[in-house]
Amino acid sequence: MAKINPHLAALKSGYLFPEIQKKKEAFLIEEPGAKLISLGIGDTTCPIAPSVVEQISCQAHAMGTPEGYTGYGPDQGSPVLRQKLSQRIYQEMIEPEEIFISDGAKCDCGRLLLLFGPNSTVAVQDPVYPVYVDTATIYGLSHSIIRMPCTPKNHFFPSPINADLIYLCSPNNPTGSVATKEQLKAYVDFAKANNSIIIFDAAYSAFIRDNTLPRSIYEIEGSREVAIEVNSFSKLAGFTGLRLGWTVVPKELNFSNGTPVHAAWSRISSTFFNGASNIVQSAGVAVLENEGWEQVQKTIDHYLENAQLIKETFVSLGYPCYGGSHAPYVWVDYSPKTSWQAFDELLKKTHILAIPGSGFGSCGEHFVRFSAFGSKETVLEAMARLSRQHVYSKNHA
Amino acid sequence: MAKINPHLAALKSGYLFPEIQKKKEAFLIEEPGAKLISLGIGDTTCPIAPSVVEQISCQAHAMGTPEGYTGYGPDQGSPVLRQKLSQRIYQEMIEPEEIFISDGAKCDCGRLLLLFGPNSTVAVQDPVYPVYVDTATIYGLSHSIIRMPCTPKNHFFPSPINADLIYLCSPNNPTGSVATKEQLKAYVDFAKANNSIIIFDAAYSAFIRDNTLPRSIYEIEGSREVAIEVNSFSKLAGFTGLRLGWTVVPKELNFSNGTPVHAAWSRISSTFFNGASNIVQSAGVAVLENEGWEQVQKTIDHYLENAQLIKETFVSLGYPCYGGSHAPYVWVDYSPKTSWQAFDELLKKTHILAIPGSGFGSCGEHFVRFSAFGSKETVLEAMARLSRQHVYSKNHA
Repeated sequence: MAKINPHLAALKSGYLFPEIQKKKEAFLIEEPGAKLISLGIGDTTCPIAPSVVEQISCQAHAMGTPEGYTGYGPDQGSPVLRQKLSQRIYQEMIEPEEIFISDGAKCDCGRLLLLFGPNSTVAVQDPVYPVYVDTATIYGLSHSIIRMPCTPKNHFFPSPINADLIYLCSPNNPTGSVATKEQLKAYVDFAKANNSIIIFDAAYSAFIRDNTLPRSIYEIEGSREVAIEVNSFSKLAGFTGLRLGWTVVPKELNFSNGTPVHAAWSRISSTFFNGASNIVQSAGVAVLENEGWEQVQKTIDHYLENAQLIKETFVSLGYPCYGGSHAPYVWVDYSPKTSWQAFDELLKKTHILAIPGSGFGSCGEHFVRFSAFGSKETVLEAMARLSRQHVYSKNHA
Repeated sequence: MAKINPHLAALKSGYLFPEIQKKKEAFLIEEPGAKLISLGIGDTTCPIAPSVVEQISCQAHAMGTPEGYTGYGPDQGSPVLRQKLSQRIYQEMIEPEEIFISDGAKCDCGRLLLLFGPNSTVAVQDPVYPVYVDTATIYGLSHSIIRMPCTPKNHFFPSPINADLIYLCSPNNPTGSVATKEQLKAYVDFAKANNSIIIFDAAYSAFIRDNTLPRSIYEIEGSREVAIEVNSFSKLAGFTGLRLGWTVVPKELNFSNGTPVHAAWSRISSTFFNGASNIVQSAGVAVLENEGWEQVQKTIDHYLENAQLIKETFVSLGYPCYGGSHAPYVWVDYSPKTSWQAFDELLKKTHILAIPGSGFGSCGEHFVRFSAFGSKETVLEAMARLSRQHVYSKNHA
């Protein structure tokens, strides 16, 4: 009798993005001519960098020759890529052997749970990237998920709550807020005192343009003993479709029984995963070289300009809004409207797709997330529509 | 207190291949000049097909333009790829919507366990591909793993044993044996009668050259109600490094409570996975087009010729051996030597690396697995060394 995993029943209905997709399709049936602008799903739209294109093409041709062909790669990823990450992202604070190459932060978030015992308690920010909650739920941890309310009052980084695992995302998805060094230090100290492990999602760290803000949790003293960091090339270099990421497990990090997490993660990742695509790993190396690095910064600058435009528009229209300065997301307070009311109104009146904040947790209610991952033209057009609609509403109030 | 997953302690020491790697390194320190030939790990060595190279290069250049760039793909994979698989591999017996694109069979083997309840019993063939056992162990199922002894007496396909999940691999890794339609029919009927689900690993199906042997479990009547099939481009097209595979979940397949597996798998795979690389998916399409298909068949023919050479050599030397006709593996009986004795002797006396059969389970004891994934030259050289060593041993006996 092959029984279903009973924990699947504890999942909230539908993953947020498919729900939005359905609403979008229904709208397009009603108004087939509508020119929708998506400021919704956090998906990159700019081309990959020229030096990355060349590297992939070159690597493909090598794979077509007996000398250049490679099969299974080293278990934990390309040594060159691990070394480049150590240098470029971590200024050698992190050793290459502590960096595990993955096919993206989301995939590793799921696998990481395999490290821990079946009764682990899990603290997440609320609002939260749904994958942390859904993966923990499928593993049977739904009753041990504790939500840490993130509101403008606590600058979206609440005091830490006692749990075995504490998920933190900075720059935050969805709020766009960035933790300060002091805020992260409080989490690190708390985790150390309580034997917790922090899972730090730094997938948006490339958007931080202020050097006083931490791009990695390893900039915080004591973090090597308490934190795992996941990161990705998705938002750094437009690899959402190419699939490449990494996870850092420092050698000082131990489970409560004193055994090292590093060895356990080596075993789990080599059993449940078989490496990121070799061609994509070589593309990752190209991103981290000087030429590629300069090219990807320009694309990030472009997205940051979009974020600034979005933020300025909402400020000028009188909405309280957050994020968008060192993050590709702007988090707009539509109170007293609910998030879905605001979503429906945006879709109907301005043909703009955004993400209802309540989809990220109850503390996201009344908020809407706007993504800056579009072209400048579409963002300008969307902002013009919002401004026009605002004037129209005022005149017809 | 972040506690370690207690099930990790139930894992057998080290994954087989790292163990062999250590022995190899120790040997090379002793004999630094030795010209080792690996007939060990099942890793492809021939270049990828020219049409695949062109497709990757072309796709990379498209990704470098605003028009050709794509980010996150559809949750379950490229519709074109799913359709081509439906046509080319399944002659439309399987619908595109029943095919879920993955980054390889191994990765999906791990994720598939998330479908099932925590007390599931799991039957595996012995000898067995270690990933089925290790992933089930890490999920906490080590006490419910039942081994089905596979020996020459039962032609390596024993009578089915009652379990919630029954793993079958054909062409088999490591024995190289291929199940007949009658053998598979017995499993399908048994699974239907007992409400079991078969997880059918067809990763080596491209090596079957006899049309009367089943390449897919879906050639067997009734299988759509009882079987999931995993497959991969790794051995079909040399994608071991590129990473691409698929899993089939037919719409008729239900859990014991009557709910469809298809919906649950959609949810799990879209939560724990974020798609195979888009560039690699387009390369998969190129494999399935006429030109690419013809090109990859030539490479498979080459490996099959190697397998034949290996098999003929061992037969001529008087060893009982199996597989190698519709599979890239030859399974050689070294009795009364143990597998590791045979491994050590092969390494020391002929500088050939092979895989000790006992690494795949107790019924693999006395056997050694030889892989045909080398160049013809190295296989010829290895077989010549074996023959010379045989003559030498005879003369010095």
